[in-house]
Amino acid sequence: MRVALLAIALSLVVAAPASAQDATKTKPRTAKDIIDAAPASAWRTLDPANTLYMELEKGRVIIELAPGFAPEHVANIKTMAKGGFWDGSTIYRSQDNFVVQFGDADADDKAKAKPLPAGTKTHLPAEFTRSTKGVAIDRLPDVDGWAPEVGFIDGFPTAVDPRAGKAWLTHCYGMLGAGRNNAPDSSIGAELYVVIGQAPRALDRQLSAVGRVVKGMELLSATPRGPEPMGFYDKPEQRTTIKAIHLASEVPESERTPLQLLRTDSQAFMDSTEARRNRVDDFYKIPSGHIDLCNVPLPVRAPPK
Amino acid sequence: MRVALLAIALSLVVAAPASAQDATKTKPRTAKDIIDAAPASAWRTLDPANTLYMELEKGRVIIELAPGFAPEHVANIKTMAKGGFWDGSTIYRSQDNFVVQFGDADADDKAKAKPLPAGTKTHLPAEFTRSTKGVAIDRLPDVDGWAPEVGFIDGFPTAVDPRAGKAWLTHCYGMLGAGRNNAPDSSIGAELYVVIGQAPRALDRQLSAVGRVVKGMELLSATPRGPEPMGFYDKPEQRTTIKAIHLASEVPESERTPLQLLRTDSQAFMDSTEARRNRVDDFYKIPSGHIDLCNVPLPVRAPPK
Repeated sequence: MRVALLAIALSLVVAAPASAQDATKTKPRTAKDIIDAAPASAWRTLDPANTLYMELEKGRVIIELAPGFAPEHVANIKTMAKGGFWDGSTIYRSQDNFVVQFGDADADDKAKAKPLPAGTKTHLPAEFTRSTKGVAIDRLPDVDGWAPEVGFIDGFPTAVDPRAGKAWLTHCYGMLGAGRNNAPDSSIGAELYVVIGQAPRALDRQLSAVGRVVKGMELLSATPRGPEPMGFYDKPEQRTTIKAIHLASEVPESERTPLQLLRTDSQAFMDSTEARRNRVDDFYKIPSGHIDLCNVPLPVRAPPK
Repeated sequence: MRVALLAIALSLVVAAPASAQDATKTKPRTAKDIIDAAPASAWRTLDPANTLYMELEKGRVIIELAPGFAPEHVANIKTMAKGGFWDGSTIYRSQDNFVVQFGDADADDKAKAKPLPAGTKTHLPAEFTRSTKGVAIDRLPDVDGWAPEVGFIDGFPTAVDPRAGKAWLTHCYGMLGAGRNNAPDSSIGAELYVVIGQAPRALDRQLSAVGRVVKGMELLSATPRGPEPMGFYDKPEQRTTIKAIHLASEVPESERTPLQLLRTDSQAFMDSTEARRNRVDDFYKIPSGHIDLCNVPLPVRAPPK
């Protein structure tokens, strides 16, 4: 009686073995059943040229960049990664229910700021939205308070304004964005943040979002929080050291972490999302009839042998 | 240029000093301006008889119980707290972007399970919803995908179905719930969970939610995650020890943490929420015209001297 909550994992549900008694009834397939049965064509392989590895003492955080949304920022980030800009840098901010932020903690101090690698641009346009012209959108039918429509573009959670013909990345858990000052075009991708709490969707269209964490979020989200209100650590020794941030394509192949992501235009993705939207099983009693964009898991797996 | 993100704290915004140039313009008040100017009557004092202190090595987590929603669970939790049930227990689960769970890690093992204090009920009704009859609801005007209406009852984030005359606590960040097995009435409040990620609103009306963390969330949310898929630690030594969970009213007055919460029926709460809904300042360029229930901060302060 006191065990509890064993069944409420959102990410995976282990299907209960069918007893002899209910073997005659067809149980509705769980999201996990559907994903496990997805054909190879439902999966896409993460592109090493578009993937960042953030190496921490505790392990590797894997980030997929979003050049379709923020081409200039992504290009600059690749230049900085190739130049080793973040090697030895830190996570210098951890604000509860909001973001961790990393880069050069001394960026504001001209005397101590780390030089930018050769070729890094020092000014970029704001990349808050993109045109939807010719872009495939995997729409969700669900209502969203922040935008007229939501769904996925290039596999990223996205909001869409069809009247304006614009789309933008949404600040869901795990989203990577480029910090800026007050000017919209003041980010260059050197100082980055990752969402670690309830989606701060009020940031949508206010900053250039540049990618998302696809593996290793738990290494960022469990970072001890810095003091309120903003989570910047008081003391340098409280920061978390980043050993390196490199492009996967620059890492020897034997040291890479090959990953596949479920395509958001696949039948398996649509069906598994529907199974979550109206989940009824031994544990869940009431179908929600809804899912929020930022509650939709984006399944990741090691490529099958 | 690389500083960045200094202005995007959701919890507090330090008003920029008005320069001579714009002193003639009236700046819109920020949420912080509004809350700072709120009269004493806009604040309510946390009731010690309804407050739990969870004592961890790193500090105190303060929880407000919700007897209006789950009277039987709350009564049982008070009995268990008075009987020292959780003293020396552990946080034995930490699942990324979902929940931490705590209580007796050996509850399933009859030989090792900790005995329940005298007077603890071993069966309770499911307390998933409450009647709205005669209940004051501080409604939000914002659309919600999970429920017909949302707002606050007794200061707690709440969903409402006016046709059914029912209301229920929503699984926002910081919500405390009672773990259960498959039977709806299988929770007694001994094993508890706290939401540490994107609001898993699909749990609404599926479990008995019993309160919420009002201070110290960062002590729970930064708990190292356990292994996937469900975050239960492999080894006992990975668990976080809970020194004690006691009712504030049972703790000597000199050791209490007096707190006040902004009343959700106050003008200051309504005005500050509106300021967040349509936030435009030096940093934010686009008013959202919306706020999600689980993005509304519930301000807490030490009582003024």
